[in-house]
Amino acid sequence: MSFVRNAWYVAGWSRDFGDDLKPVTITGQNMVMFRASTGRVVALEDRCPHKLLPLSKGKRIGDTVQCGYHGMTFDCSGKCVRVPGQDNLPRSAYVDAFAVEERNGIVWVWMGEADKADPSKIFHMDEFDDPDWYAHHGGALHIKAHYLNVAENLVDPAHVSFVHPTTLGSAASEDVPVHVSTSGDVIAAWRWIRNAPPVGFFQKFGGFAGNVDRWHYYYLHMPSTAVIDFGSVDAGLNLPEDARDQGVRIFALHFVTPVTEDYTIDHWMHLRNTAQGDEEASAQMDAMFRIAFEEDKEVLEAIHEEEQRPQKRKPIRIAIDKAPNVYRKRIRDLIESEATEYLGEPERPTFVQLD
Amino acid sequence: MSFVRNAWYVAGWSRDFGDDLKPVTITGQNMVMFRASTGRVVALEDRCPHKLLPLSKGKRIGDTVQCGYHGMTFDCSGKCVRVPGQDNLPRSAYVDAFAVEERNGIVWVWMGEADKADPSKIFHMDEFDDPDWYAHHGGALHIKAHYLNVAENLVDPAHVSFVHPTTLGSAASEDVPVHVSTSGDVIAAWRWIRNAPPVGFFQKFGGFAGNVDRWHYYYLHMPSTAVIDFGSVDAGLNLPEDARDQGVRIFALHFVTPVTEDYTIDHWMHLRNTAQGDEEASAQMDAMFRIAFEEDKEVLEAIHEEEQRPQKRKPIRIAIDKAPNVYRKRIRDLIESEATEYLGEPERPTFVQLD
Amino acid sequence: MSFVRNAWYVAGWSRDFGDDLKPVTITGQNMVMFRASTGRVVALEDRCPHKLLPLSKGKRIGDTVQCGYHGMTFDCSGKCVRVPGQDNLPRSAYVDAFAVEERNGIVWVWMGEADKADPSKIFHMDEFDDPDWYAHHGGALHIKAHYLNVAENLVDPAHVSFVHPTTLGSAASEDVPVHVSTSGDVIAAWRWIRNAPPVGFFQKFGGFAGNVDRWHYYYLHMPSTAVIDFGSVDAGLNLPEDARDQGVRIFALHFVTPVTEDYTIDHWMHLRNTAQGDEEASAQMDAMFRIAFEEDKEVLEAIHEEEQRPQKRKPIRIAIDKAPNVYRKRIRDLIESEATEYLGEPERPTFVQLD
Repeated sequence: MSFVRNAWYVAGWSRDFGDDLKPVTITGQNMVMFRASTGRVVALEDRCPHKLLPLSKGKRIGDTVQCGYHGMTFDCSGKCVRVPGQDNLPRSAYVDAFAVEERNGIVWVWMGEADKADPSKIFHMDEFDDPDWYAHHGGALHIKAHYLNVAENLVDPAHVSFVHPTTLGSAASEDVPVHVSTSGDVIAAWRWIRNAPPVGFFQKFGGFAGNVDRWHYYYLHMPSTAVIDFGSVDAGLNLPEDARDQGVRIFALHFVTPVTEDYTIDHWMHLRNTAQGDEEASAQMDAMFRIAFEEDKEVLEAIHEEEQRPQKRKPIRIAIDKAPNVYRKRIRDLIESEATEYLGEPERPTFVQLD
Repeated sequence: MSFVRNAWYVAGWSRDFGDDLKPVTITGQNMVMFRASTGRVVALEDRCPHKLLPLSKGKRIGDTVQCGYHGMTFDCSGKCVRVPGQDNLPRSAYVDAFAVEERNGIVWVWMGEADKADPSKIFHMDEFDDPDWYAHHGGALHIKAHYLNVAENLVDPAHVSFVHPTTLGSAASEDVPVHVSTSGDVIAAWRWIRNAPPVGFFQKFGGFAGNVDRWHYYYLHMPSTAVIDFGSVDAGLNLPEDARDQGVRIFALHFVTPVTEDYTIDHWMHLRNTAQGDEEASAQMDAMFRIAFEEDKEVLEAIHEEEQRPQKRKPIRIAIDKAPNVYRKRIRDLIESEATEYLGEPERPTFVQLD
Repeated sequence: MSFVRNAWYVAGWSRDFGDDLKPVTITGQNMVMFRASTGRVVALEDRCPHKLLPLSKGKRIGDTVQCGYHGMTFDCSGKCVRVPGQDNLPRSAYVDAFAVEERNGIVWVWMGEADKADPSKIFHMDEFDDPDWYAHHGGALHIKAHYLNVAENLVDPAHVSFVHPTTLGSAASEDVPVHVSTSGDVIAAWRWIRNAPPVGFFQKFGGFAGNVDRWHYYYLHMPSTAVIDFGSVDAGLNLPEDARDQGVRIFALHFVTPVTEDYTIDHWMHLRNTAQGDEEASAQMDAMFRIAFEEDKEVLEAIHEEEQRPQKRKPIRIAIDKAPNVYRKRIRDLIESEATEYLGEPERPTFVQLD
């Protein structure tokens, strides 16, 4: 098992959830989700405890879900409220319910131990609520690959030169070194490409003609939310690193949701400090992102297939892998800590004093 | 293994078997079947003992089957009668032959120990030969599901309210209790829904407008033949339970054939006491049955997929499961008794008298 | 594992290899192949040692291959010549390179221990360079089957009567015995069908109307190259067996390449002593071969599926299996000898002299 369970994962955009029963799988757990009459989104185990029919094959009766086989009915807490043909409701007739939170148009589900679900830990950016920033919810990229490879790719500035030569990268950046740092549960990798022709993205968006300074800051929040702060500014301005707001600046967000060991969904959106409310600009950017993400998908799916094949020797690691390596190590530690229970130090040493 | 082997299973309707070699699989056994010149249907192991090519890829030469690879030829008893390129016929050059019986347009194959094949044990209803009853052979429903789930569904009156709301069930029957009894190798489950609007089926067939009394009697003959006696009559007549012939009465028959652990074919037909010889009525009923059976198929295939996934806890059983539970228990007992050999009581006790 | 590794296998025709990166799999080994600027065909392990992306998803930069993910670059010997973002080239940054030889329009790859690759062992026929013989490279038949079954079929004259009744065989040959002999690493099986109507192939090609003498000589060179010497001549001439050049004589060549345990490619071509340079005749022959090979494919794929199913008893062997049996034994011996290392006799006995 390679999933961190005690985490909030993105199930979809707010617009994805309405009256209908929607099957959603996260960390291998099948859930049926819907928006209750209270407006809250509900997530229940998608399996009737009777004959195992997924509840998403049944139907809503008010704020309950009725199984499509024999009509067993469950409320929003997962409790069984009806068993047709009998009066008593067995205690074992329940489905698991999962904590759901909705923030800024994003629906999060807690996949771990119920008593550890803490909404204050949900990923947040101040820019979500800042009128100087414009948010656009893009799409959901489905990838037949392991989520760690997908997330790792999002703290890896080096790949853009080779995978996205027409949109996000160019030959000019091939050998520019990558800086890496960590801060709390965030891993950061970044680099500036100074005084180079604008990449495809910034030729189309921003309208740069002459040379620009371009930056890429990749922030990976554990376990799998990525914020890519990237932008360009006229090279002549010689912009200091911390004055990026003065350039055309974009936060590309990726919420990487592990579906199964072989399937991942990347919900992607962006925030920008320009072209506020200009949905034509949003559509233009989406189109460029989609080109780039299809390139990522092709690479990641090919790697996933290759990883299923026998390996004769260990893969090698190179300089640009620093951030991905830190990420892998942290994920392993998190999974390890979830798999074991820490009982604390013994009050007194247990050895026997000799003499 | 979850198949009862010592049983007659339906391979198809009489009309399905002619001169051509037809591959048929029952209880995981691949067979090649055809109608010999004598009119009898033959079933042979569908694998040449030489290079394993299925014989159904070969061709008929009179009443023999010639392998399509090197021409080894087998007669209707499975004996090899020709090996091209040599004169002697090795004793090991044979294929298994299976007992086949054809009755009332139905072709049965015995999948168990040859010396136990007893044609008198083949399922029969007196109505097959009764001029007051009209038989119509419907079709064959292919379901990617385990046969026990398919058969169990046919001794389960409770599901029709939820799975077949437009044809066979309605909300009126949701909470009507189910009676269960057993008699010999038959498990029966039934209920009457009195004085309720007719369900879709009996609005179209029978032309009932006002309230009716409706009955469903499900008889499951071991291991997997179901007879569903269902019908409706004007509620005002207050029909006694044993006077069902006075209503519009239908016997829906299902011959459930286990193909593999993941695949089942349900050959379905009906007998009726009205609209004799009216093939338009037959077609109309087939159309309604097909709607209902597609609904069953969707439920059963979803359950089959779900059963392949990990289970955290045991499924629960509820009041309406009584007949399915008895059925499962009987199947387990049959399989257990086939897997062990009963050697009888020792003539004299084997203990040593101590005194 | 059922592959002979120390062998030259055919990767394709010369025409199949150009500037583009072409993925090729032999004995389960994925390779990327291309024609270098020197004209030589190169074969490298198709997996970047960094993140495992197949190099065939990358691109050529001159005579190097650049990985499509992070730009690691490998030369024709598999050595890494560039790691973007760093100056040092780790020694472990390499991919395996495979010896490739190109002869008479055929590209061979050595899949075994590098120091044993001996180009003088590559299959050759003098007719390749003989102006009296005309060579035509046909196609590549992809078969979902094990290569031993494909190769065995090519030293099995008996099957043509049953599998190819419209092209290569006829009922006249069904019972004609097969002769078998071995010579070095070649297994031969042959028979003459004397004074019989011409088979379909020789009605169309050769234009025979009256009875002919027809021969089939199957030569299987270890591990999996087959030469089928077949032809026809007027029966009245009573041609001696060693005067076949006086008839219409064809060498059908099959280079059987094991791709995986479940997939085989058969590159087929022919040489003929008539209709020199007549590409219409070549096309006509190809069309007939394709009919026959599709028949083989259907048989071999059905057998492959059947071989994955449980077997209750051992397959039987019959008289016509002599050559296939010898072939299987030799393959087993080759694989066994590759799996063990022969250390020779000890110089002096190690036992202790007792006296």
